[in-house]
Amino acid sequence: MKPDDNVTGQNCPLPVTDYKTVLLAHGGGGRLMHQLIDRVFVAAFGSPELQDKHDGAVVRAGSDRIVLTTDSYVVDPLFFPGGDIGSLAVNGTVNDLAMCGARPLYLSAAFIIEEGFPMESLRMIAKSMRGAADRSGVRVVTGDTKVVDCGKGDGLFINTAGIGRLEHQLTICPDSIKPGDLIILNGDVGRHGIAVMAEREGLAFETEIQSDCAPLAEPVMKLIDAGIEVHCLRDLTRGGLATALVEIAEVSHLHIEIDESAIPVSDGVQGACEILGFDPLYVANEGRFVAFVPEKYTEKTLAILSSDSFALDARIIGKVTDQNSGLVTMKSMIGAERIVDMLSGDQLPRIC
Amino acid sequence: MKPDDNVTGQNCPLPVTDYKTVLLAHGGGGRLMHQLIDRVFVAAFGSPELQDKHDGAVVRAGSDRIVLTTDSYVVDPLFFPGGDIGSLAVNGTVNDLAMCGARPLYLSAAFIIEEGFPMESLRMIAKSMRGAADRSGVRVVTGDTKVVDCGKGDGLFINTAGIGRLEHQLTICPDSIKPGDLIILNGDVGRHGIAVMAEREGLAFETEIQSDCAPLAEPVMKLIDAGIEVHCLRDLTRGGLATALVEIAEVSHLHIEIDESAIPVSDGVQGACEILGFDPLYVANEGRFVAFVPEKYTEKTLAILSSDSFALDARIIGKVTDQNSGLVTMKSMIGAERIVDMLSGDQLPRIC
Repeated sequence: MKPDDNVTGQNCPLPVTDYKTVLLAHGGGGRLMHQLIDRVFVAAFGSPELQDKHDGAVVRAGSDRIVLTTDSYVVDPLFFPGGDIGSLAVNGTVNDLAMCGARPLYLSAAFIIEEGFPMESLRMIAKSMRGAADRSGVRVVTGDTKVVDCGKGDGLFINTAGIGRLEHQLTICPDSIKPGDLIILNGDVGRHGIAVMAEREGLAFETEIQSDCAPLAEPVMKLIDAGIEVHCLRDLTRGGLATALVEIAEVSHLHIEIDESAIPVSDGVQGACEILGFDPLYVANEGRFVAFVPEKYTEKTLAILSSDSFALDARIIGKVTDQNSGLVTMKSMIGAERIVDMLSGDQLPRIC
Repeated sequence: MKPDDNVTGQNCPLPVTDYKTVLLAHGGGGRLMHQLIDRVFVAAFGSPELQDKHDGAVVRAGSDRIVLTTDSYVVDPLFFPGGDIGSLAVNGTVNDLAMCGARPLYLSAAFIIEEGFPMESLRMIAKSMRGAADRSGVRVVTGDTKVVDCGKGDGLFINTAGIGRLEHQLTICPDSIKPGDLIILNGDVGRHGIAVMAEREGLAFETEIQSDCAPLAEPVMKLIDAGIEVHCLRDLTRGGLATALVEIAEVSHLHIEIDESAIPVSDGVQGACEILGFDPLYVANEGRFVAFVPEKYTEKTLAILSSDSFALDARIIGKVTDQNSGLVTMKSMIGAERIVDMLSGDQLPRIC
């Protein structure tokens, strides 16, 4: 066993050190991206916060615990059914703060614009950002504008960073999950990835699939305010539900069991995935998350989530067992059990 | 007079509303960029912090006053004499925090990598970021990695956001300057822009010009810790010294007088600017700043700065008068006085 086997993952045939250049798959949210982050960025920066594999970093600035998070958005196309890069850039970062258990407060917004980008599109996207910010009660308080020559960008890339405040004493992170925790999912999976891909490739399905892009801070704050002892929260972005769960299992060294029949997938997404050869468990979402809570809180959690418009269909999809395997297994529709792993690379590039 | 004349600037023939697309010049730090920010981003986001025209936003997260700032770095080329995109991305954001009077604490780092980018270059840049972070006592605590297809980016773009803490009661911003304040500059201007441009265009000057890229938090913290009543700080990035001063004069509605003969320009930069037709006052710096302090503190300010390795050549270059013109004027070498304005566009794209 190599000393860095825990980083490489048991099933990955291609250590990042063998790559001389960065591949598209290094941005896909799967095993290769995790390797790149570990071997290049965590290795260089050496911060314990980065090793937590969380959606943001909990830090102290004076007497308060605050959370800092960042994401760059390179979604292609910029406008898609159910959202655009603007709403995505606000909701995505708001959601990362929420997944750390923080109340989102302020955002920064930095734009890398390709020369020739339509001014009217920029205006529409800025307006969309404002709308999304208002819905989550955050403000864009600082920003940056860069323009690159034609052919050196792709229309528009947006970075948002966000800060939020922890108003409780919980430690919400992958390492906090415990045997017996139940895993609650807030709705059907796979819509964002399929909506973006269909728009990009000009595919028309019977019913238009809308992205699930949505702000998640409100339902999360409701759980915390209700005194629920939340152990871990994770939004299911790049790599989808499967990758999120594998990451949490690996960090916690615990075993996660999920039940395929409990995971809602819309007929539209199921059909599109069958045609395209995708597995909806690996398709990105932008308004879906899992909450790990002790069994005694599940009823209350479900009641609270089901009253929120972005979590109407919340349900239990699995549990944490007392095996120290660091693995995720899934009971399939036909009753068989199989190991769920991250993808090595990427099935859908540039969906966020 | 149009209602938005104060945004357009008196001398700008081209209101941003006339542009159907974004030009390279909209990212140049000059009048056009200010228009784009005001008309598109400030108009959409509506936050008072954005209207302050500061390098970052002072916000409250609990009981403490903290500062949030962000910058994306698109410098071309990625490596240049005196620095690289990594050290630039850390120093630039550290300096923006310092210019708000904040002690820099934590950074986020988000990478947009073009497919095919050499892994070894990425490693070198990450290492350079770590070195710069260590020098300023900050840590990179959270991050993001995106990869875009070949031809849709330009090697590497980095965004860093930063948070810092205000440990004093001063309000350091353009609106705080007062008649009688003296303006102190920490060294010679124009080296960063010329160094990057020379490297990009393959120009060889008699002596290689090194970027002035440097961390400025330490000298700033020394001034504040010494009890100096600093009114405003501003680093002289895109648009150079001239643009920074014009922005401060416009926000404060006060008159700034500077003395050309007091502004140090190295022989190398002077020569390069003469050959290329640039004015060193508009060339970008990444380790230069101006401090506005009441006259009674100037001796102490100069003594403190001159003991810092990044401000050895600190000197008084001008003052704030009691005219409410909102203008900057400069006494030239030959004794004539002229109005200093922002450039409309850009003389050197992609220098940061």
